[in-house]
Amino acid sequence: MAKSIKRVGLIGKYGDQDSSKMLLQLAEYLLNRQISVVLEDTAADGVRGLPSVTTLPREKIGGHIDLAIVMGGDGTMLNVSCHLAEHDVLIVGVNKGRLGFLTDIPPEAMMQEVERILEGDYETEERFLLSTEVMRAGKIAHSAKAFNDAVITKGELARLIEFEMYLDGEFVHSLRADGIIVATPTGSTAYAMSAGGPILHPTLEAMAIVPICPHTFSDRPLVVSSDSIVEIVIMELVGQRVFLTLDGQAGFSLQDQDHIFVRRLEHTVKLIHPTRRNHYEVLRAKLHWGEKL
Amino acid sequence: MAKSIKRVGLIGKYGDQDSSKMLLQLAEYLLNRQISVVLEDTAADGVRGLPSVTTLPREKIGGHIDLAIVMGGDGTMLNVSCHLAEHDVLIVGVNKGRLGFLTDIPPEAMMQEVERILEGDYETEERFLLSTEVMRAGKIAHSAKAFNDAVITKGELARLIEFEMYLDGEFVHSLRADGIIVATPTGSTAYAMSAGGPILHPTLEAMAIVPICPHTFSDRPLVVSSDSIVEIVIMELVGQRVFLTLDGQAGFSLQDQDHIFVRRLEHTVKLIHPTRRNHYEVLRAKLHWGEKL
Amino acid sequence: MAKSIKRVGLIGKYGDQDSSKMLLQLAEYLLNRQISVVLEDTAADGVRGLPSVTTLPREKIGGHIDLAIVMGGDGTMLNVSCHLAEHDVLIVGVNKGRLGFLTDIPPEAMMQEVERILEGDYETEERFLLSTEVMRAGKIAHSAKAFNDAVITKGELARLIEFEMYLDGEFVHSLRADGIIVATPTGSTAYAMSAGGPILHPTLEAMAIVPICPHTFSDRPLVVSSDSIVEIVIMELVGQRVFLTLDGQAGFSLQDQDHIFVRRLEHTVKLIHPTRRNHYEVLRAKLHWGEKL
Amino acid sequence: MAKSIKRVGLIGKYGDQDSSKMLLQLAEYLLNRQISVVLEDTAADGVRGLPSVTTLPREKIGGHIDLAIVMGGDGTMLNVSCHLAEHDVLIVGVNKGRLGFLTDIPPEAMMQEVERILEGDYETEERFLLSTEVMRAGKIAHSAKAFNDAVITKGELARLIEFEMYLDGEFVHSLRADGIIVATPTGSTAYAMSAGGPILHPTLEAMAIVPICPHTFSDRPLVVSSDSIVEIVIMELVGQRVFLTLDGQAGFSLQDQDHIFVRRLEHTVKLIHPTRRNHYEVLRAKLHWGEKL
Repeated sequence: MAKSIKRVGLIGKYGDQDSSKMLLQLAEYLLNRQISVVLEDTAADGVRGLPSVTTLPREKIGGHIDLAIVMGGDGTMLNVSCHLAEHDVLIVGVNKGRLGFLTDIPPEAMMQEVERILEGDYETEERFLLSTEVMRAGKIAHSAKAFNDAVITKGELARLIEFEMYLDGEFVHSLRADGIIVATPTGSTAYAMSAGGPILHPTLEAMAIVPICPHTFSDRPLVVSSDSIVEIVIMELVGQRVFLTLDGQAGFSLQDQDHIFVRRLEHTVKLIHPTRRNHYEVLRAKLHWGEKL
Repeated sequence: MAKSIKRVGLIGKYGDQDSSKMLLQLAEYLLNRQISVVLEDTAADGVRGLPSVTTLPREKIGGHIDLAIVMGGDGTMLNVSCHLAEHDVLIVGVNKGRLGFLTDIPPEAMMQEVERILEGDYETEERFLLSTEVMRAGKIAHSAKAFNDAVITKGELARLIEFEMYLDGEFVHSLRADGIIVATPTGSTAYAMSAGGPILHPTLEAMAIVPICPHTFSDRPLVVSSDSIVEIVIMELVGQRVFLTLDGQAGFSLQDQDHIFVRRLEHTVKLIHPTRRNHYEVLRAKLHWGEKL
Repeated sequence: MAKSIKRVGLIGKYGDQDSSKMLLQLAEYLLNRQISVVLEDTAADGVRGLPSVTTLPREKIGGHIDLAIVMGGDGTMLNVSCHLAEHDVLIVGVNKGRLGFLTDIPPEAMMQEVERILEGDYETEERFLLSTEVMRAGKIAHSAKAFNDAVITKGELARLIEFEMYLDGEFVHSLRADGIIVATPTGSTAYAMSAGGPILHPTLEAMAIVPICPHTFSDRPLVVSSDSIVEIVIMELVGQRVFLTLDGQAGFSLQDQDHIFVRRLEHTVKLIHPTRRNHYEVLRAKLHWGEKL
Repeated sequence: MAKSIKRVGLIGKYGDQDSSKMLLQLAEYLLNRQISVVLEDTAADGVRGLPSVTTLPREKIGGHIDLAIVMGGDGTMLNVSCHLAEHDVLIVGVNKGRLGFLTDIPPEAMMQEVERILEGDYETEERFLLSTEVMRAGKIAHSAKAFNDAVITKGELARLIEFEMYLDGEFVHSLRADGIIVATPTGSTAYAMSAGGPILHPTLEAMAIVPICPHTFSDRPLVVSSDSIVEIVIMELVGQRVFLTLDGQAGFSLQDQDHIFVRRLEHTVKLIHPTRRNHYEVLRAKLHWGEKL
């Protein structure tokens, strides 16, 4: 039932010399199979001399491909996924030598895995993203997507933020903390875990709401349905600087009485994995979890 | 669309003098409304003289009622819910003066709330239970239900248990810990929270798997879909005593190589709450959470 | 063996109308007992008409008094203590209606407690402060005192800081975290506790070193002797802003390769408490700890 | 200033074939240096044929030696240390191939390190032990020593224990928990750490009091001076089984109203380490801490 793959995008960190070679090999292989190749423009130098390759910037590539082969680390995957989410594209991550949660194919296995994927021998895992909006004085002041997490966090001084939290319009509680994280299952093993959050199963339809250094101990991490709308209201920011950051990227500056809405994005990301993979292998490797006794 | 209520069961701790009076008042009120009343046998003394009241033991009452009015604490509710789960009965909890997570109606509001319930003015909240089976040498050695949690825990000596965890048949990791908790959302605010687990939203279709004092810090609480089958395999119990307890009740003694399977029970419990209730009020009260600023 | 008290300083938030009355009453009482009174200049308006009262700024008052009666919250006490630490002055804290860890005398008991103190009926508790120095390219770039904590913390973006920690010149470990806290016993119930640190007994000669949201779980809070010299080296701050804040006050901006040294200040603060006080009463009240069963 | 070493005890797990060879080599080396050798009786078979070697049971060996060379894991060291603590004996731990916190000499370096020790080239680290007494109806019902920790813990059922804690006779708070740990710095990296306790520097004169799965989150780990007397009073054990275990060894069964006193043992253990060792190397290795950047 695998989707037929006719157009492949090569995205991410193909810029350095080693990756460049791989890129060329991959592009030639695909073209030989009568598959059209679209290349992210930042890596275009690597395939000079292949006339049939189109180049496009990352934000425009989504509509033109069926499969994205992303070279890089988890950070690259987060960003690419946000750009491709609405285009129903399959995505596979090739790490650059260091195992990632999302980039689980090592570079030396790339050619072989791509071949298997083209033959339909893969598993698809759907993951959801977050859609975030800041409402200020009745208007949308900011909106953006995130794959890992939406983080509201204090600025440089060691003071607490006060905010109220609502779920689906209903008041939950007010908090004093360094900040708060709303994480997807994907993000539950990232920053949210450092703040004491639980690990959510990758395909669980839930979000973790994790306070950062809460003043009160009973302000525990909360796990809610991915259907819920999380609303945070910033209270009394006397001279404080508070920021919203998405997937750890450049912050948007928040103000008193800003309402930050976080909800599940309707579209999902379709990650591809080799079949017969053990889903927990990466977790065990990254978290030093115990192997079979 | 509320279900028509024709038969009401009065269950729980109606035994003492105060509750006895309430019981009588309640039974008379119901009979006057042409509603048949079934009474748990342990409280039968309280309604001597009401000829039209049937008495039954708790484990047999399920098939004979549409609504159960349970008097007691959360512990009583846990037990009653396990007995009624398979009978599609509505359940409402009346606390005995001390707010509970499940018994959210104070005794003084009981008559008024019952009246509203009979008129269909209520909200139903479905919660799931756990079904637990111990497989030993290929046979079922023990099986039972739980509303809060299934807990595997070491005996009296301060030594670790070693076990392996599987999800849906797939190996996740091996652990050394004092024990492990599989909790429903209902149970996530009970023992699992003391062990460092997250709070799951009451209606989330998920279970929390929380290790107790794990030897390795990265053995974090894990939240998985309620569709998952959790399997714990007990390894190398050299002279150790290990127990399975359900909702904190009498333990079942486990052995080397026992496989404990925990999964969602198909039937749900239908808890009734007054309408227009704020769902998070009880959490705020019990956990000292901050009110609106 | 109580020190004879001949000169009293009235310091802190005596400015509002209520406190002003108390201030006047207190000043007259002291003058009547032939005790000289020194007033912090910010509160001077309150005692207009008492010719024998000297006024001085907070930073100069230390050398002129034997006892400081400080009106305010814990924040005021932290700041006053840093100013008085090197002058061997007794300090007593009067709260403004809300119990503090350091200001344990309620305003209505002030006159009575002051009388008992002047008669020698009190207990002295010595607490130590931190002395902090930032070494940059071989020179002292910043130095300051703290009573609660020295906090190194990232700026607004949700990224980790990398640093190395040394104790008494010996390498301990390198960390990736949102920041790190070095807290006195006094500070162990403040920010360090929100970050997961232990409570140190107020008179314990130890410091707690508590990472904030560490990337690696095994980076646990560490408790070391107050004789130790804690050294933090900031590594690789590519475009990051990192700050040192002391007792939550205005931050000092740190740079790559800055060495931050934190050690015990030689002088101690001498806090005064009413005799026969239970030392743990404040902790129980502030932390919702259980009373006797 | 190193103490002159004339009598050496060989204690611990010298029983297997590999260790037996090492034992013989070591005994011959020592006898050649005119050092008398005392052997724990359980390992006596290993040196058959060396007429000048005395054998003694572990509990009697203390008064007859200046240095103990202990073969085994940390568990062996804990037990040997409790037996030797009152005899002013130097102790060095040889691990059996797996790094321990206390046994930091690998077997292959044993001969070389022993030679250096005999020449006075070593560092001594003094560590303290706990002395524990259970008072029942005014009499001592049980007393024992511990090097790591004294643990009060519930039996097999998943119920809480209620107890009151006192420090130096003063009430601190009452707790509901699975149990409570009083740990030395040595024990702070053992069970206490799994329960969420901080790491105490090995030579810090302090104890960590760590509740196990406390019902209330604000019942945080507490660090107190090693001069303090910790007193735990067991309350209301209705049908519960509660145990005191020391260093994880066989439990002593506690009763309602038992008072458990834990204090520092006057004598210290004198651990020997190779000079120029980095004290934190073992911690980094065992806890996956970050090396220099």
